[in-house]
Amino acid sequence: MATPKPVSQSRIEHTHLVMPGEANNLGTAFGGMIMQWTDVAGAMAAMRHARGPVVTVSIDQLTFLAPIRIGYMALLSAQVNAVFQTSMEVGVEVSSEDPMTGERRKCCDAFLTFVALGPDRRPVAVPPLLAETEEEKRRERDARVRREARLQLRAALRGA
Amino acid sequence: MATPKPVSQSRIEHTHLVMPGEANNLGTAFGGMIMQWTDVAGAMAAMRHARGPVVTVSIDQLTFLAPIRIGYMALLSAQVNAVFQTSMEVGVEVSSEDPMTGERRKCCDAFLTFVALGPDRRPVAVPPLLAETEEEKRRERDARVRREARLQLRAALRGA
Amino acid sequence: MATPKPVSQSRIEHTHLVMPGEANNLGTAFGGMIMQWTDVAGAMAAMRHARGPVVTVSIDQLTFLAPIRIGYMALLSAQVNAVFQTSMEVGVEVSSEDPMTGERRKCCDAFLTFVALGPDRRPVAVPPLLAETEEEKRRERDARVRREARLQLRAALRGA
Amino acid sequence: MATPKPVSQSRIEHTHLVMPGEANNLGTAFGGMIMQWTDVAGAMAAMRHARGPVVTVSIDQLTFLAPIRIGYMALLSAQVNAVFQTSMEVGVEVSSEDPMTGERRKCCDAFLTFVALGPDRRPVAVPPLLAETEEEKRRERDARVRREARLQLRAALRGA
Amino acid sequence: MATPKPVSQSRIEHTHLVMPGEANNLGTAFGGMIMQWTDVAGAMAAMRHARGPVVTVSIDQLTFLAPIRIGYMALLSAQVNAVFQTSMEVGVEVSSEDPMTGERRKCCDAFLTFVALGPDRRPVAVPPLLAETEEEKRRERDARVRREARLQLRAALRGA
Amino acid sequence: MATPKPVSQSRIEHTHLVMPGEANNLGTAFGGMIMQWTDVAGAMAAMRHARGPVVTVSIDQLTFLAPIRIGYMALLSAQVNAVFQTSMEVGVEVSSEDPMTGERRKCCDAFLTFVALGPDRRPVAVPPLLAETEEEKRRERDARVRREARLQLRAALRGA
Repeated sequence: MATPKPVSQSRIEHTHLVMPGEANNLGTAFGGMIMQWTDVAGAMAAMRHARGPVVTVSIDQLTFLAPIRIGYMALLSAQVNAVFQTSMEVGVEVSSEDPMTGERRKCCDAFLTFVALGPDRRPVAVPPLLAETEEEKRRERDARVRREARLQLRAALRGA
Repeated sequence: MATPKPVSQSRIEHTHLVMPGEANNLGTAFGGMIMQWTDVAGAMAAMRHARGPVVTVSIDQLTFLAPIRIGYMALLSAQVNAVFQTSMEVGVEVSSEDPMTGERRKCCDAFLTFVALGPDRRPVAVPPLLAETEEEKRRERDARVRREARLQLRAALRGA
Repeated sequence: MATPKPVSQSRIEHTHLVMPGEANNLGTAFGGMIMQWTDVAGAMAAMRHARGPVVTVSIDQLTFLAPIRIGYMALLSAQVNAVFQTSMEVGVEVSSEDPMTGERRKCCDAFLTFVALGPDRRPVAVPPLLAETEEEKRRERDARVRREARLQLRAALRGA
Repeated sequence: MATPKPVSQSRIEHTHLVMPGEANNLGTAFGGMIMQWTDVAGAMAAMRHARGPVVTVSIDQLTFLAPIRIGYMALLSAQVNAVFQTSMEVGVEVSSEDPMTGERRKCCDAFLTFVALGPDRRPVAVPPLLAETEEEKRRERDARVRREARLQLRAALRGA
Repeated sequence: MATPKPVSQSRIEHTHLVMPGEANNLGTAFGGMIMQWTDVAGAMAAMRHARGPVVTVSIDQLTFLAPIRIGYMALLSAQVNAVFQTSMEVGVEVSSEDPMTGERRKCCDAFLTFVALGPDRRPVAVPPLLAETEEEKRRERDARVRREARLQLRAALRGA
Repeated sequence: MATPKPVSQSRIEHTHLVMPGEANNLGTAFGGMIMQWTDVAGAMAAMRHARGPVVTVSIDQLTFLAPIRIGYMALLSAQVNAVFQTSMEVGVEVSSEDPMTGERRKCCDAFLTFVALGPDRRPVAVPPLLAETEEEKRRERDARVRREARLQLRAALRGA
């Protein structure tokens, strides 16, 4: 079995300046654009853990908490939360930073699932994850709870 | 209370040709791009129901089932599935069409929540939804099951 | 000779939300952007009829009737109007939809010619067209009138 | 009556390097992209003649003669061909240049109509055009022939 | 006089995945794209120090050391190196990360000058800089050497 | 030794209309966008001299002199200033043109170094440059002064 890799090795930091061309007609970053940033940040975290190509399997939850205005910075951070054989739950958080005051505000919270692909483009196993801090352990537990809930929901909808 | 509006009035059809500039280095549409198309299609369905500006609140589930190759068509369809006071669950489905054979394949399934905004940019109530066909009624029931599951999951994670 | 294919099989529907990044400094969709949407919609209709790769040969007429504002929807519909051996006239119509009221307005009318390419990238014959409705028959007749006028104009300009 | 302005004052030269993100999956510049460049080049020529904001009224003919490959240069030239009160016919020519050999090839020929807008965003008269060279005089005559043909075609289609 | 602000408060980290649409036809990130990322990263560092809007005054040196391939990550880091009344020298470094091996390689080194703008859009003084580490002190000295060299060069070219 | 090529053979003219999607939130063309145009214009001039693929080695100086507003034209001109074996200094100048009045203003001045690549993607010698006019000879001399200053600066920073 492969040696577990610490969460910190997959961590991604990303600071993005919101441009007018990325905004909707309310003057804030268009939702689909934030999703795209989130997907790329998540993919990079998953690639760092898997050290190979990855594809997005699903967004399991992505919640917009506050808009990000044109001219503000969008701060993205992502890391692998949990590993399930060939798939990985990646957590991505987006905050805004007011360039005038430095004030930060959490704007978006997302959980995505990626799988690693082998040379034949089929899923391959990824190294186990080593959650070191309390925060990392909580994230791993929560990822398992979310996964269990998804499986139950799928069963419920099939039975309905 | 407002007159219920039929699901069919919010329905959106969208046919998109996948361009090289929208693809990842595996030659298929980049996941973040599909999310962006999905968000826009969903927003248009929600705007048609609400007849006012809307914002994306969350992606509740978005599943990639198959990749879409460069040069293939991406067929998007979206409609409001259920209404909860000021929020709407919108379902978006993405299929690919092989331009050579016409063969279609379901590629992505998504459920998003939008809220309608009033002139003060605060959430406003939207008209109730009239699900007419069996398919529309099933979608509305499923949306309620998904919502219930989300509320339970949130409670479970808080308690964890 | 190949079996004629009905016009309805080539029909494309496309609903697009006009974004600030697609607008000129009058706050309406930039003409070159609408041309691009028109070309892609036309190409998809031609590909559906030819079931093979196509290239744009010409825009024979594209008329802007009204601007489309940021935040409005652009509704595109396209279908093959007539077939001339290896080439196809495709008609594309663009309407705007006011998201607040649902009011629609015709904004652009275009006629483009595409050819289908074979494996050697040279033009190949496409199936004949089956115009079924009165509207489809009128479109086919008009396409022939437009083609005749183009040939006459070319002769007139050469002689000038 | 305003002093006529020479054609040369509206002339635009534009050299563009074709990027992979602007190409279709045949490795050549995507038709809709060339249309967009054509529209912008034409608008700039019209603005130079009118010295005010302009909008595209129509593409009267745009013919693709040869594809332009990724990595090649696209050379655009545009000038006002003829003036009809508030509207202008602008001619745009696109050639490709092979970066290795310098060999040039005509790739696209287009005729567009623009109108100038006044402060109230309604059409305003533009200065008459002074065609000085033989080439400019031929272009002005041809523009009148094309315009006449369009009016006849419109009448023919209405009567059909 | 304003309290000096430490270099660390202006530091920006940015991880970017190179997409096919950002590459030239050699399969590596197009130089103009890297310049654009560099400018945005630099602007964000300058905004963090100045806590106000900034504009790029000049790129004083930007050196490409190695190409960055499609599918690789581009890691950008930027910080204010030195403050000269209303202007700031910002240093930006770009490295590539091979997603398969994690191997990093320095790809681009850039020094840009930004000025902070006041409410009237005219340059305003920014807080002094507090270089704390040896590395930060070396960067500040080097920035002064570069500035001196620029002033001498300008004089030499004028006199030539 | 190869026959010298005149400067005029590498000259590029480019007229670009500034679009809202290319502007920062001050309503003027975003600095990183101007850098990108500059790089492409410079690369085309270098390709015309070398008649082969080129890569950007460095921006040696790029100075913003005045902003360019949305709706204004950006006029770019570029030419090879001097040749140093395998590398070329290219000068790029950007002016703005007010579409209403035709008034022009110099906005950006840039000097970039490109190298030509051979079939093995390694630097190859380019033809010598023939500076014909006084202006071209001054540019060539200045390029040598700039180069000398860069070498001295590098030595000074190493010694520091």
